[in-house]
Amino acid sequence: MSMRTSYCGLVTEQQLSQTVKLCGWVQRRRDHGGVIFIDLRDREGLVQVVCDPDRPDMFKAAENVRNEFCVQITGLVRARPAGTENTNLTSGKIEVLCHELVVLNASVTPPFQLDDENLSETTRLTHRVLDLRRPQMQYNLRLRYKVAMEVRKYLDSAGFIDIETPMLTKSTPEGARDYLVPSRVNAGMFFALPQSPQLFKQLLMVSGFDRYYQITKCFRDEDLRADRQPEFTQIDCETSFLSEQEIRDLFENMIRHVFKEAIDVSLEAQFPVMQHIDAMRLYGSDKPDLRVKLEFTELTDVMRDVDFKVFSTPATTEGGRVAALRVPGGGELSRGDIDGYTEFVKIYGAKGLAWIKVNEVAKGRDGLQSPIVKNLHDASIAAVLERTGAKDGDIIFFAADKAKVVNDALGALRLKIGHSTFGKSHGLFEAGWRPLWVVDFPMFEYDEDDARWVACHHPFTSPKDEHIDYLETDPGKCMAKAYDMVLNGWEIGGGSVRIFQEAVQSKVFRALNLGEEEARAKFGFLLDALQYGAPPHGGIAFGLDRIITMMAGADSIRDVIAFPKTQRAQDLLTQAPSPVDERQLRELHIRLRQPEVPKA
Amino acid sequence: MSMRTSYCGLVTEQQLSQTVKLCGWVQRRRDHGGVIFIDLRDREGLVQVVCDPDRPDMFKAAENVRNEFCVQITGLVRARPAGTENTNLTSGKIEVLCHELVVLNASVTPPFQLDDENLSETTRLTHRVLDLRRPQMQYNLRLRYKVAMEVRKYLDSAGFIDIETPMLTKSTPEGARDYLVPSRVNAGMFFALPQSPQLFKQLLMVSGFDRYYQITKCFRDEDLRADRQPEFTQIDCETSFLSEQEIRDLFENMIRHVFKEAIDVSLEAQFPVMQHIDAMRLYGSDKPDLRVKLEFTELTDVMRDVDFKVFSTPATTEGGRVAALRVPGGGELSRGDIDGYTEFVKIYGAKGLAWIKVNEVAKGRDGLQSPIVKNLHDASIAAVLERTGAKDGDIIFFAADKAKVVNDALGALRLKIGHSTFGKSHGLFEAGWRPLWVVDFPMFEYDEDDARWVACHHPFTSPKDEHIDYLETDPGKCMAKAYDMVLNGWEIGGGSVRIFQEAVQSKVFRALNLGEEEARAKFGFLLDALQYGAPPHGGIAFGLDRIITMMAGADSIRDVIAFPKTQRAQDLLTQAPSPVDERQLRELHIRLRQPEVPKA
Repeated sequence: MSMRTSYCGLVTEQQLSQTVKLCGWVQRRRDHGGVIFIDLRDREGLVQVVCDPDRPDMFKAAENVRNEFCVQITGLVRARPAGTENTNLTSGKIEVLCHELVVLNASVTPPFQLDDENLSETTRLTHRVLDLRRPQMQYNLRLRYKVAMEVRKYLDSAGFIDIETPMLTKSTPEGARDYLVPSRVNAGMFFALPQSPQLFKQLLMVSGFDRYYQITKCFRDEDLRADRQPEFTQIDCETSFLSEQEIRDLFENMIRHVFKEAIDVSLEAQFPVMQHIDAMRLYGSDKPDLRVKLEFTELTDVMRDVDFKVFSTPATTEGGRVAALRVPGGGELSRGDIDGYTEFVKIYGAKGLAWIKVNEVAKGRDGLQSPIVKNLHDASIAAVLERTGAKDGDIIFFAADKAKVVNDALGALRLKIGHSTFGKSHGLFEAGWRPLWVVDFPMFEYDEDDARWVACHHPFTSPKDEHIDYLETDPGKCMAKAYDMVLNGWEIGGGSVRIFQEAVQSKVFRALNLGEEEARAKFGFLLDALQYGAPPHGGIAFGLDRIITMMAGADSIRDVIAFPKTQRAQDLLTQAPSPVDERQLRELHIRLRQPEVPKA
Repeated sequence: MSMRTSYCGLVTEQQLSQTVKLCGWVQRRRDHGGVIFIDLRDREGLVQVVCDPDRPDMFKAAENVRNEFCVQITGLVRARPAGTENTNLTSGKIEVLCHELVVLNASVTPPFQLDDENLSETTRLTHRVLDLRRPQMQYNLRLRYKVAMEVRKYLDSAGFIDIETPMLTKSTPEGARDYLVPSRVNAGMFFALPQSPQLFKQLLMVSGFDRYYQITKCFRDEDLRADRQPEFTQIDCETSFLSEQEIRDLFENMIRHVFKEAIDVSLEAQFPVMQHIDAMRLYGSDKPDLRVKLEFTELTDVMRDVDFKVFSTPATTEGGRVAALRVPGGGELSRGDIDGYTEFVKIYGAKGLAWIKVNEVAKGRDGLQSPIVKNLHDASIAAVLERTGAKDGDIIFFAADKAKVVNDALGALRLKIGHSTFGKSHGLFEAGWRPLWVVDFPMFEYDEDDARWVACHHPFTSPKDEHIDYLETDPGKCMAKAYDMVLNGWEIGGGSVRIFQEAVQSKVFRALNLGEEEARAKFGFLLDALQYGAPPHGGIAFGLDRIITMMAGADSIRDVIAFPKTQRAQDLLTQAPSPVDERQLRELHIRLRQPEVPKA
């Protein structure tokens, strides 16, 4: 005898006049005209249960149930009285006349109402078990499952094999900080939790598995921002014998498939491909949000000889940039709005925010309203108006500084205006899904602090074939076979064609100032593997948490993870991390630095 | 232009007279009659490539290739000359006449031949990348993938949802030793890697997800045996509102499905169900290998009053046992064989191994040959012969000691004889797949060292409803709603119906001598969750590594894991664990206990 015959949320008029057994939670109990109505909930939704007083035992039981009691009911499916149907529910045309009600497990009063939309995150994470009962959280995690399963289906039919790589790996302190795991058996030694399975998946290609994937946890011990977690999930993929174009096509198709199957969204048939240099030029970002209909205008060349040091100094300095952002209709922005934006760009290092309101283009200089226009000669003004394509009623913002500051500040301003109420009401934002590829990244960027080149992606990314000589002569000019998939301003995936020749890998290590001995100590196993006929290979990794967050329209990746950590890397539900026994530390050959062990 | 048109191993007579492009590794190069033959290998198998000297450039390239070179060839598919077909290969009816040969990546000479079957494990794990190129390892890992995927398909269609649970969890030192992860942000605190997602999956049931699964890594820092790894993979499942019987049926079906789909084995339609007490009685083991056609005979009651202390003392002592193992045809075992078995059972604590050879049953005492028969009175001899069903030519072994020693020693002897050449040639071993359920485990076993009851499964297992009172009065009598799935002597899965009522959970904690404060500190989040209408729930976890090891007929679980650890918990390929920088330790607020940091 089963405890139930159906999910609550799936009882429909198909079962009219049948006796059903249901198990679920009391969402709400109403007493109405001597009758008790119970909204009974399970993962599939709600059903209305009606308890009549003509069965006194059952009615007495029904009188005692409270919200979140777990109950089992047996009853007859009947049509709801005309006019009381609920079209929002699958079960909305029927109700269940209760014959028997068994309290499977009572509930103390929950600390909050499940439908309260204004709970603090601390409350939600502390009482995560109840928080997860909310329909939105149920939806989010089921969506997450559906996406993962669709990814598996797609990759399976494309010949990919899921191969598990180790969680207890070697610490190679490049990039982010490792989580370390002390070894008991090997005193004084440590494992690291993987930041990604990068090297293992490359080794699997050298082993000839040809197509690999894994949906797996990765770990980075970084200070957490809104969209980061200490442990996060990657869709990690690698292939052999494919060109960059073929790899991108394969995974573009995967994302298209998943969006269609999981949320019925048809992404465009061919994602735009943008060179990294163009993304920086037009949007100041390597992950531009193409929903925002605003672009930068390059003005560095125009401002070299103006009599205005704020512009001419960056314009004539190596690594400087002057750029503009024309905002159609921005003439109506108030002085207060502009002051707000000026403060905003300072977050990104800008010293100020010059602007020109374009009242009448036809009047040239006289048609402009601006604190800076007096400092600009006619040729530069003409160039600004022409290049930006200014129209009456626009505002043009300017940034002039080191290129990084200009890109960050003006890029952030672009997004802020685009996403603002003003932007949305002026056609500067177009809702929808705007994927693109950003390609042709530089191999290296110069780390001023360490005075050395560091890898933009990671040190295993292949340089462009025609740029291999730059590795030794001019690393800054060397471009990589690297590509990011960007969606609505988020990097959702990143990958590259990898180095498959030991000689090239060694050159890259040298360019990164990694001595031969150090390279061997850290990556000897990779260099060895590359010597045994490693195949050309490349791949990509997608951030599953981010993709689901976007699909679900959630505020935070914490809303698409069952048991996330807080921004202080704590699990408020189980109270992890926590102090441990001295005996445990002794077995691991470590001790705390503090004189005192914190109390539990 | 793609680098290849087909996998090497999949070229067949379907492509006769077509030009193909193939990429792969040189398995072997033979020079024969002025022509070069290359066996080209990829993950799908081998194809024969023929290089004629009439294309000098290509031929020169072919002359230079060596084993494990990664090459691309372009050529014409033609039939092999009659009589040279290879029926072991999918591509065995054809060969590819090479037009062009490109060395994609050369290989230094591998440290061993890929087809060498006698490599040490150290060699294989050190050069794992090459070891994984071997067809057997390719098969094992692809089988592993197929099994995991079939598990997913089955569970998906049964309404299960894969939900990821945390890897950075709370240390609750019950059971095995935790792997710890020091927290940087929370000084002096530690995460633990999960020994299983047990509590999280129960919390997900309380949250109403109804059916959960996850194929996930678990971690135990134990001293390693042949079939253990520090990190291992579980198929972890949990359901709500199902009875023990329904849960077992669901997962029995899953295993049946997976064996059929992955290796085309039809397991029996209904697995036998054996009570734990019967498994111990008949096989001395809670994971009996039913392929061995030998059973214990209980003799404790018969031996109470014999004038032979070796038997009568255990027979009259609380917790003692006397049992026999009849071996049909064992009369032909030599004195040397018997001495060998006597040594063998000493490993398990037995002090000796009594035996009786049954020459002629009809003659009673006079038909027996034995060093002990003189010590046994007629009634006991009659009982031995009758209960064991002895026949002429048998041998009967005896064990008499504490029950645990009898069970371990005689159980091990049963397996040893069953799997021996003697056993196999005498019908004592029947090859095949013999699954069963072992059920009705005791809740607790008494830990003599700690002088307290410990949980046989884990402290969240539900007692039988009718045994709840025993929790307070007589824990030793309390049976659990626990079940193991056993296959050919291996426990491949274990689970239970869980406690879903806070009051019962608290009683179990008390029976385990876990004080209220300690219980709250460790498991407060569970006790809290159970108060909010937790549903009846239960589940199971299967050991994926073991299942694949059995399916693949591998010697060790290390043969079904891409990058396993050695028995000293080391990764010989990447050299993990390894020493780390002092800076990293400082950030984690720990220091080594040794005065010296080991050198890298």
